[in-house]
Amino acid sequence: MEIIDGNEIASQIIDELTEKVREFSGNKPVVLFIRVGEDPASVSYVRKKQRTAEKIGITSDLLVLPDSITQPELIDKISEANHNPGIHGILIQAPLPSHIDERDIFNHVLPQKDVDGFNATNLGLLCQERDDCFASCTPAGIIEILKRQNIVTEGKHVVVLGRSLIVGKPVGMLMLRKAFPGNSTVTFCHSRTANIENITQQADILIAAIGKPHFVGEGMIKKGATVIDVGINRIPDQSKKSGYRLVGDVDFEKVAPLCTSITPVPGGVGPMTVAMLMSNTVKAFELSLSTNSYT
Amino acid sequence: MEIIDGNEIASQIIDELTEKVREFSGNKPVVLFIRVGEDPASVSYVRKKQRTAEKIGITSDLLVLPDSITQPELIDKISEANHNPGIHGILIQAPLPSHIDERDIFNHVLPQKDVDGFNATNLGLLCQERDDCFASCTPAGIIEILKRQNIVTEGKHVVVLGRSLIVGKPVGMLMLRKAFPGNSTVTFCHSRTANIENITQQADILIAAIGKPHFVGEGMIKKGATVIDVGINRIPDQSKKSGYRLVGDVDFEKVAPLCTSITPVPGGVGPMTVAMLMSNTVKAFELSLSTNSYT
Repeated sequence: MEIIDGNEIASQIIDELTEKVREFSGNKPVVLFIRVGEDPASVSYVRKKQRTAEKIGITSDLLVLPDSITQPELIDKISEANHNPGIHGILIQAPLPSHIDERDIFNHVLPQKDVDGFNATNLGLLCQERDDCFASCTPAGIIEILKRQNIVTEGKHVVVLGRSLIVGKPVGMLMLRKAFPGNSTVTFCHSRTANIENITQQADILIAAIGKPHFVGEGMIKKGATVIDVGINRIPDQSKKSGYRLVGDVDFEKVAPLCTSITPVPGGVGPMTVAMLMSNTVKAFELSLSTNSYT
Repeated sequence: MEIIDGNEIASQIIDELTEKVREFSGNKPVVLFIRVGEDPASVSYVRKKQRTAEKIGITSDLLVLPDSITQPELIDKISEANHNPGIHGILIQAPLPSHIDERDIFNHVLPQKDVDGFNATNLGLLCQERDDCFASCTPAGIIEILKRQNIVTEGKHVVVLGRSLIVGKPVGMLMLRKAFPGNSTVTFCHSRTANIENITQQADILIAAIGKPHFVGEGMIKKGATVIDVGINRIPDQSKKSGYRLVGDVDFEKVAPLCTSITPVPGGVGPMTVAMLMSNTVKAFELSLSTNSYT
């Protein structure tokens, strides 16, 4: 059984991007982070992404907007960034205040600058198997893990737990592609699925993105499976200073012994998400250098 | 066992649309058909669609372009129609000549006029479960059949054979929606799927869109399933004047006795496709009357 080291893979990707950015003569990639309000988790995530960008040689700008911003005002700010040729990628840190329609906001980011891959056009291009689209970062990270670990996917049964727009649906669509990783038989399970364990037991590759701590127990696994755990759940833990610890959607202790390979939480898919955001940003920069006709 | 009468359902829909269009005061919906070349099947399909439009009270225009048209010239023609406020829906009859990149052409149709639902943005909006998108017509027809037949879909296992952009992927995404029909567990199978019969035998609803005559035999079916046959395949038949007959992807004679309900070929999904094209055209007209902010 192999524990897949997401930190190690992410760090390789970041090194490769650093090398690539160093070789760009002239302009360098620029990403704009838009943060609405002062939610401490958002402040910390954006800071972390900015630090990684800086390390790679990507310039990052930060636009902080007040919690009280309206939908049309936020759309105006996005529109300005869409029209600014000096900005190659735009990331709007979620969650947004509850009076804002997030999906609508994401759909206003120009597809060519949508490094988060949340825009409807990018999602459609991903279904169309276009190479010049932006896949959202967590699914892209999962694909990169499977690729770099050389895990056979063709003809394999991939079961995705969860049907979210940010993870479940795009990762399933990516695994359907006529490519490696891909060419898999793909099943989507979710809260309404009946006899879910009958289905997960068939999975050669199980991708858990359901947001329930320890949801996947040993009875749900086929022996020899690869398990990708996307969950990041806080559970109370008095032994920790913070009073909690992070666990995945998979009961790692019990499931790991049955697997051929498995991602841990933390240190599995998590670090890949930031790495793929940076990879998307460099890709947006490269696409901006060539003519781009998909709109 | 019930044989689902697609002609009857399509005819209901056409009656409903006729009634609706009659009630529009002032302008009526206008659809533009673009046909490239003189392929006899395309000529016949477009004529059939025009006749149905006329019956409903939708005005249809036909633009016939030469086989020799280039990609940029065709895009210019689409752009003109995109900008013409008197045209509410645009349909480009496939197949296009082999020197034309079809997917790219479809992506140039304005999403709000894309009544065929082949545009990347509409596909993405469909994944986002937006009501104001256009689902491609065959998947929309399948959903309409399930809805009007009141077939329970929540928690049921839907197995889709085929991963095409026009049928397989969108119909699977529609069955995943938090809606009726939808909320299903969805599996996509295709040419690379291993032990395909083990998976189809689990299907409460089997949607066959794989383009292989009689591919689905009785050994692939769970007793009591609903079977939706999207295949339209020509097989030689000397008893017919034409020398061929149309059959589906399902071996109807052998499979039907095992089913709770099944669509025949012809007369099942086929007539629904044209009905849903008309439904999309009326929807495009209605959306054009209200402000529409999804781009």
